[in-house]
Amino acid sequence: MLNTSSAVLPPPIVLDPLLQSWLQEDIGRGDRTTQALIPSAETGTAQWIVKEPGIVAGLPIAARVFRLLDPNIQFESRGTEGQRCNRGETIATITGSFAALLTGERVALNLTMRLSGIATATSRYVDKIADLSAQLVDTRKTTPGLRILEKYAAQVGGARNHRMGLDDGVMIKDNHIAAAGGIRQAIEQIRTRIPYPLTIEVETETLAQVEEALQHGADIIMLDNMPPDQMRQAVQKIRSTSNRIKIEASGNVTLETIRSVAETGVDFISSSAPITRSTWLDISMRLKQGIPDSSQA
Amino acid sequence: MLNTSSAVLPPPIVLDPLLQSWLQEDIGRGDRTTQALIPSAETGTAQWIVKEPGIVAGLPIAARVFRLLDPNIQFESRGTEGQRCNRGETIATITGSFAALLTGERVALNLTMRLSGIATATSRYVDKIADLSAQLVDTRKTTPGLRILEKYAAQVGGARNHRMGLDDGVMIKDNHIAAAGGIRQAIEQIRTRIPYPLTIEVETETLAQVEEALQHGADIIMLDNMPPDQMRQAVQKIRSTSNRIKIEASGNVTLETIRSVAETGVDFISSSAPITRSTWLDISMRLKQGIPDSSQA
Amino acid sequence: MLNTSSAVLPPPIVLDPLLQSWLQEDIGRGDRTTQALIPSAETGTAQWIVKEPGIVAGLPIAARVFRLLDPNIQFESRGTEGQRCNRGETIATITGSFAALLTGERVALNLTMRLSGIATATSRYVDKIADLSAQLVDTRKTTPGLRILEKYAAQVGGARNHRMGLDDGVMIKDNHIAAAGGIRQAIEQIRTRIPYPLTIEVETETLAQVEEALQHGADIIMLDNMPPDQMRQAVQKIRSTSNRIKIEASGNVTLETIRSVAETGVDFISSSAPITRSTWLDISMRLKQGIPDSSQA
Amino acid sequence: MLNTSSAVLPPPIVLDPLLQSWLQEDIGRGDRTTQALIPSAETGTAQWIVKEPGIVAGLPIAARVFRLLDPNIQFESRGTEGQRCNRGETIATITGSFAALLTGERVALNLTMRLSGIATATSRYVDKIADLSAQLVDTRKTTPGLRILEKYAAQVGGARNHRMGLDDGVMIKDNHIAAAGGIRQAIEQIRTRIPYPLTIEVETETLAQVEEALQHGADIIMLDNMPPDQMRQAVQKIRSTSNRIKIEASGNVTLETIRSVAETGVDFISSSAPITRSTWLDISMRLKQGIPDSSQA
Amino acid sequence: MLNTSSAVLPPPIVLDPLLQSWLQEDIGRGDRTTQALIPSAETGTAQWIVKEPGIVAGLPIAARVFRLLDPNIQFESRGTEGQRCNRGETIATITGSFAALLTGERVALNLTMRLSGIATATSRYVDKIADLSAQLVDTRKTTPGLRILEKYAAQVGGARNHRMGLDDGVMIKDNHIAAAGGIRQAIEQIRTRIPYPLTIEVETETLAQVEEALQHGADIIMLDNMPPDQMRQAVQKIRSTSNRIKIEASGNVTLETIRSVAETGVDFISSSAPITRSTWLDISMRLKQGIPDSSQA
Amino acid sequence: MLNTSSAVLPPPIVLDPLLQSWLQEDIGRGDRTTQALIPSAETGTAQWIVKEPGIVAGLPIAARVFRLLDPNIQFESRGTEGQRCNRGETIATITGSFAALLTGERVALNLTMRLSGIATATSRYVDKIADLSAQLVDTRKTTPGLRILEKYAAQVGGARNHRMGLDDGVMIKDNHIAAAGGIRQAIEQIRTRIPYPLTIEVETETLAQVEEALQHGADIIMLDNMPPDQMRQAVQKIRSTSNRIKIEASGNVTLETIRSVAETGVDFISSSAPITRSTWLDISMRLKQGIPDSSQA
Repeated sequence: MLNTSSAVLPPPIVLDPLLQSWLQEDIGRGDRTTQALIPSAETGTAQWIVKEPGIVAGLPIAARVFRLLDPNIQFESRGTEGQRCNRGETIATITGSFAALLTGERVALNLTMRLSGIATATSRYVDKIADLSAQLVDTRKTTPGLRILEKYAAQVGGARNHRMGLDDGVMIKDNHIAAAGGIRQAIEQIRTRIPYPLTIEVETETLAQVEEALQHGADIIMLDNMPPDQMRQAVQKIRSTSNRIKIEASGNVTLETIRSVAETGVDFISSSAPITRSTWLDISMRLKQGIPDSSQA
Repeated sequence: MLNTSSAVLPPPIVLDPLLQSWLQEDIGRGDRTTQALIPSAETGTAQWIVKEPGIVAGLPIAARVFRLLDPNIQFESRGTEGQRCNRGETIATITGSFAALLTGERVALNLTMRLSGIATATSRYVDKIADLSAQLVDTRKTTPGLRILEKYAAQVGGARNHRMGLDDGVMIKDNHIAAAGGIRQAIEQIRTRIPYPLTIEVETETLAQVEEALQHGADIIMLDNMPPDQMRQAVQKIRSTSNRIKIEASGNVTLETIRSVAETGVDFISSSAPITRSTWLDISMRLKQGIPDSSQA
Repeated sequence: MLNTSSAVLPPPIVLDPLLQSWLQEDIGRGDRTTQALIPSAETGTAQWIVKEPGIVAGLPIAARVFRLLDPNIQFESRGTEGQRCNRGETIATITGSFAALLTGERVALNLTMRLSGIATATSRYVDKIADLSAQLVDTRKTTPGLRILEKYAAQVGGARNHRMGLDDGVMIKDNHIAAAGGIRQAIEQIRTRIPYPLTIEVETETLAQVEEALQHGADIIMLDNMPPDQMRQAVQKIRSTSNRIKIEASGNVTLETIRSVAETGVDFISSSAPITRSTWLDISMRLKQGIPDSSQA
Repeated sequence: MLNTSSAVLPPPIVLDPLLQSWLQEDIGRGDRTTQALIPSAETGTAQWIVKEPGIVAGLPIAARVFRLLDPNIQFESRGTEGQRCNRGETIATITGSFAALLTGERVALNLTMRLSGIATATSRYVDKIADLSAQLVDTRKTTPGLRILEKYAAQVGGARNHRMGLDDGVMIKDNHIAAAGGIRQAIEQIRTRIPYPLTIEVETETLAQVEEALQHGADIIMLDNMPPDQMRQAVQKIRSTSNRIKIEASGNVTLETIRSVAETGVDFISSSAPITRSTWLDISMRLKQGIPDSSQA
Repeated sequence: MLNTSSAVLPPPIVLDPLLQSWLQEDIGRGDRTTQALIPSAETGTAQWIVKEPGIVAGLPIAARVFRLLDPNIQFESRGTEGQRCNRGETIATITGSFAALLTGERVALNLTMRLSGIATATSRYVDKIADLSAQLVDTRKTTPGLRILEKYAAQVGGARNHRMGLDDGVMIKDNHIAAAGGIRQAIEQIRTRIPYPLTIEVETETLAQVEEALQHGADIIMLDNMPPDQMRQAVQKIRSTSNRIKIEASGNVTLETIRSVAETGVDFISSSAPITRSTWLDISMRLKQGIPDSSQA
Repeated sequence: MLNTSSAVLPPPIVLDPLLQSWLQEDIGRGDRTTQALIPSAETGTAQWIVKEPGIVAGLPIAARVFRLLDPNIQFESRGTEGQRCNRGETIATITGSFAALLTGERVALNLTMRLSGIATATSRYVDKIADLSAQLVDTRKTTPGLRILEKYAAQVGGARNHRMGLDDGVMIKDNHIAAAGGIRQAIEQIRTRIPYPLTIEVETETLAQVEEALQHGADIIMLDNMPPDQMRQAVQKIRSTSNRIKIEASGNVTLETIRSVAETGVDFISSSAPITRSTWLDISMRLKQGIPDSSQA
């Protein structure tokens, strides 16, 4: 798949079942209009034009969507995945079966608009702290079924990913602590039951909890909803213990507050907002029946 | 399923495969934290609290999500689906396996937050035209995989649904018209090839096209991006032919413009904005281990 | 896919999962005979010969079945899909992997024989009313799992399709009317809950019900089991209200009675008989190992 | 599952995925009419009435269809599976969720009508040879996706089953023989490559081929399209070699010819006609809202 | 697929869904290391080297695994499937996408190592009785999900296959006999309920049971855990009745005892040990980035 | 699910699809013997008896297998999961549908025997180093499709789990290092592309590589095939840098060598042998028709 950003997509054997189910959702028992009116041998070219400025994400996925309908589709978009585009810019040119272009349009665009919206929103947060060492990370607040793709879009927008699911990282929250009888008991009970390369993150709300998490070997300490001063104290305490413990700040981070949070010295700032508060980037498709002379020769 | 709004959800045999795949996406190879720390016999109660005013949608679906993890879950939310809620209001109380509450939390909340965001945004548009005869309708710009649910949320917010996919309605656009050689040819070619109860909608941009669509028996005429005056003329022309032809206005409808569009006399105003421009309604879950005396006796 | 009739098949992304599951049903854990005896490099040619006169339907689907076993299969059948064939006529010539021809034979033939039987039976009904304006339509009495294909065959035979499932059309029957408290209440309750392009059909058995359906805006009125005279009266009453309301006659239509029903002036005559009362068209496959000189060069 | 005949159905873990996919085919994105008009708490009773005489098959499957929609459905049909029923007879009484009765009606009836049609047709052939030792067997000409069920219906009608697919029996036909270089070579090549309990059937058209099949250890010899005299000779030749070799007659067996074929002394007579030439048995469903006092207490 | 042994694999339409699910199991949400570090255009060559002597099985399957990741993979292994290999021997050379080689390595090797271990262990048993007429057969003790493949490996190692599942052969054990009321009743009850080509095997522990099984027409008689003398008597008794009844010896067969069991004259000796007691054959993969000049031209 | 060990199984929503597919593999088109001979209302009791000493693993999974066939199955096995059992010990008593006991027997036992074999073999390695701080870990050499279960069995046997797949941990091997241009480049390139809680393991073969991995921030350093002396030096070097870096020893660990490896001071010793070199623990099932008086009351 074409992909000029440094974000990483899983291989087709993982993605294709998702894309197929989404095409089936839209097509249902058949694309009545296109199948009745467009001759199957007809070819054409489509252009994708951005209608508002933003960062484009999802083109390699869109290319794959069309290819599932017509393996001979040509999808040209060099240089645009992850780049800032202006209103009116053409971000992709797609050539192939005209029926495939029409039938696949909505699924391909819906994905790209949603993912570009996320990348665009993410980049706004990232820009605020670009000169600081703290990095923005996403959360598990993602649209059901699209986690891999939405987290990919967050990467395209400049964020780092947090864990992908309940299985590739441990996050000990207040309820777990209560059930275990304390932070120490929780960490001890869980340490030997998980794949050993996995890290354990502990959610803390007070300096006392930070202290306890430090003592019992947390790999990541989350400072949840702490005021900046307290956060700074927590960072100092943790750093003085080890440089290898990662520190994550969490809790109602906004475009206004993110810089001050980053200045406390934390490593990561998690926010669901770039995914839950973003809107779709407007992209439209222009179609032209018939194709340039030399293509698909 | 509990559902106090008039919106309509498909039965579990249709919904459950989606919900199962979404739980599997989040759980992956196991909920490491919960499974290691929460005894499987432990029960508890969760409360869902709205963090910002809005219209709640998705509670019957959330109930089903938890039930797929624990068939004995009690999900109480009478009266809140589709109702306007204030900040701080409790919209659901859920009792059952504590592990199921923790493991299912994110999927259930992600769905409800997304759907409530749509219902809330939809209602803002609907409110603007509540005293007029025109009705808001959604589009096929929905998140891949969630169409049934997002269109359900649009209903909860007061909109009508447009077609669900490429198969339960015909929409003849400019490219189809060009391929067929004209509106007449397009309608003629398609009329006999589709299930007869299906309706044919024709996208028009000029009064001449409206005229042509009228002559050849379109069931629905879409007025695409027409200025209000032209739209009014189109409505008059159509109404003078038949009262049974439905008229849909489309094209960059906003909260500012929707009322003036409605006042042209169209039947339906389609807009993707309540779905593509909405953000998630913030809802959080509070957990309490152990359950009230008499429950689950 | 090759398809010379005007009937419409969904694209491979919709059909292939069905065809794969059917091949897996027949092959089970392996085609013991063919895999043990036919060298995998062996090629051959198969001819399909019709054993009784009829209308052939299903060839594009059969071609796809073989291609799922061998992507290089050549399936030649120009001109025969939907055409009347005589006993002994060759309707398709298939060249490629000899093992694929043997392993796929039964699934490909079973489908084509079943669908051709439907097309043939359908055409007998259609021929009876070819000079009248009424059109034959199918029903939801189709073999579970084959609805898309059996309705395609009905189209090939000259029928129009009725709705494809419970979701792309509304059909209000006596039980719905009773539950709602009357035709008016039923239509009112349902009108705003369905995708707006969908049409509402009301089943009527008396002229009074026809009147009620007319008054409350039914899009389609079904005259169920009415004697011809009453049917004619109903047609007149409806036509005098609007030309846009579609009229469907239903109930035990036979080859003997269909013409008199059509003469009442109804638009559509629905009958399950071409699907539930048809038998398979006999087609056999002749195989020849080795292939003509120039093929697959 | 209730089942009074001696025919054998696979357990729910095998059947349910089929039934679920068939319900999903019919329901699509929702049963618009029923979900909008029937309150979910409403219960009711349905009666299934046979509209023409025949043998009923499929009731245990129909019961399971309804139960997938409502686990509390009561399906009463003692004594009718596999029994000859007269016009007007009630074959099942079903009580439970009224919406489930309406939504599941078509899938449940379509299956039962198709299977009952097969059982009825099968029994006509079986009756012709009831006093002889030969037994009717089915073939692999079955509707794709329904093989297990259609072969079950053949059993209900009194037939024996032939192999279920390409994997649970070997059938050496002329093309296999040609590829292998003779009957001997074919049997030798295949004998050691198949699960040892599997039997090898050889298709023969001449007495010389019968002789060869006998010499090389065929377990079953099929006499394909032989005239009765030749068939009798073949039977004698085989019986004189071993009583354990099974003899199957095949080829255009009809209700007129089956008895004379059976009288040649063969063990089995295979015919696809009861499945490919049968029509559906007409069964209708009568619904009554509300349920008798004491039910579902 | 390349396959130089006489063992038989089902076609890709049956195998691929298994292989895809296994790749998905290992890849999860993405191969983090390879996708981040290996450019997608990079090609390379892999060599598979056997680390201990044994019989290799599974190469055609491994080839398919890599092809599911990169359709252009070249997998060269002529002559090695089913052959005895020495330590250090190269059994396959694989050229293509370097990322595909790295991502598919583990699944392809895991399968081949497991299957080669089975083939190797099987051949040890087979070698002990190579000059006798008795043949080794496998059982249903196979790793869940891998039955087709493990039984294929047993074939590669020189064994015959027993039935593949509960459906392609009948095995009457003591509990079935008790439930039916005796061997006679069991055989009579089951004979007419199964596909007629299927054979009936009866498990016997005494000569009296052998006698009863013989009288009532068992096709296969299993001598379960009988001492050699008794087994010899049983064989004589059966042979004197018919040469067509197959005799299987079963029960704790070891490398030490198998020859004496075979000398009793039984046809088949079943043992689960080659599958349940075998270990994986050690095979490793050596990778070289970049490919030889002329490949993939 | 009952589970007395501290090993952790994913919830039914993750496990059940696997178990269902395995039951379907064995049952195929039906359990011919049981369905024909065992009345569906018959109940019974099964006892599972261990035939050789070992550690039992898999009972909660076996219980679930039976429950998928009969939801009312009672599976009693308190105290045995993960415990050392002697020959002849009864490890489970299962009561319920007799047909379900017979049909599910093989899948349930195959799983438990395989997993118990792994747990038993694992415990032998674990016992050798029980008094040292090093812990045994598994690898990705697991039977395709069974990774979750085989790693669960390794836990039951006393091992820790390594990463579950290619996605929940990074493992930089020589080919990745070569492609990236060095350890530094590899770590730098990958660090920002992975979910931040994930750890990076680097495979080293020399002290120079250990040094480089240390300098560039590896989280885990694998000492691959190093002689004990070199390994000890490597451990010292790493420990003197940070106590938080985990050290894994890898490469042909045997029961003879594991202790000397552990004594070098490494944290983890990875070995595939307990999974690839283990055999199944022999367990048999004894059945008794009819059930004790008070059960299932």
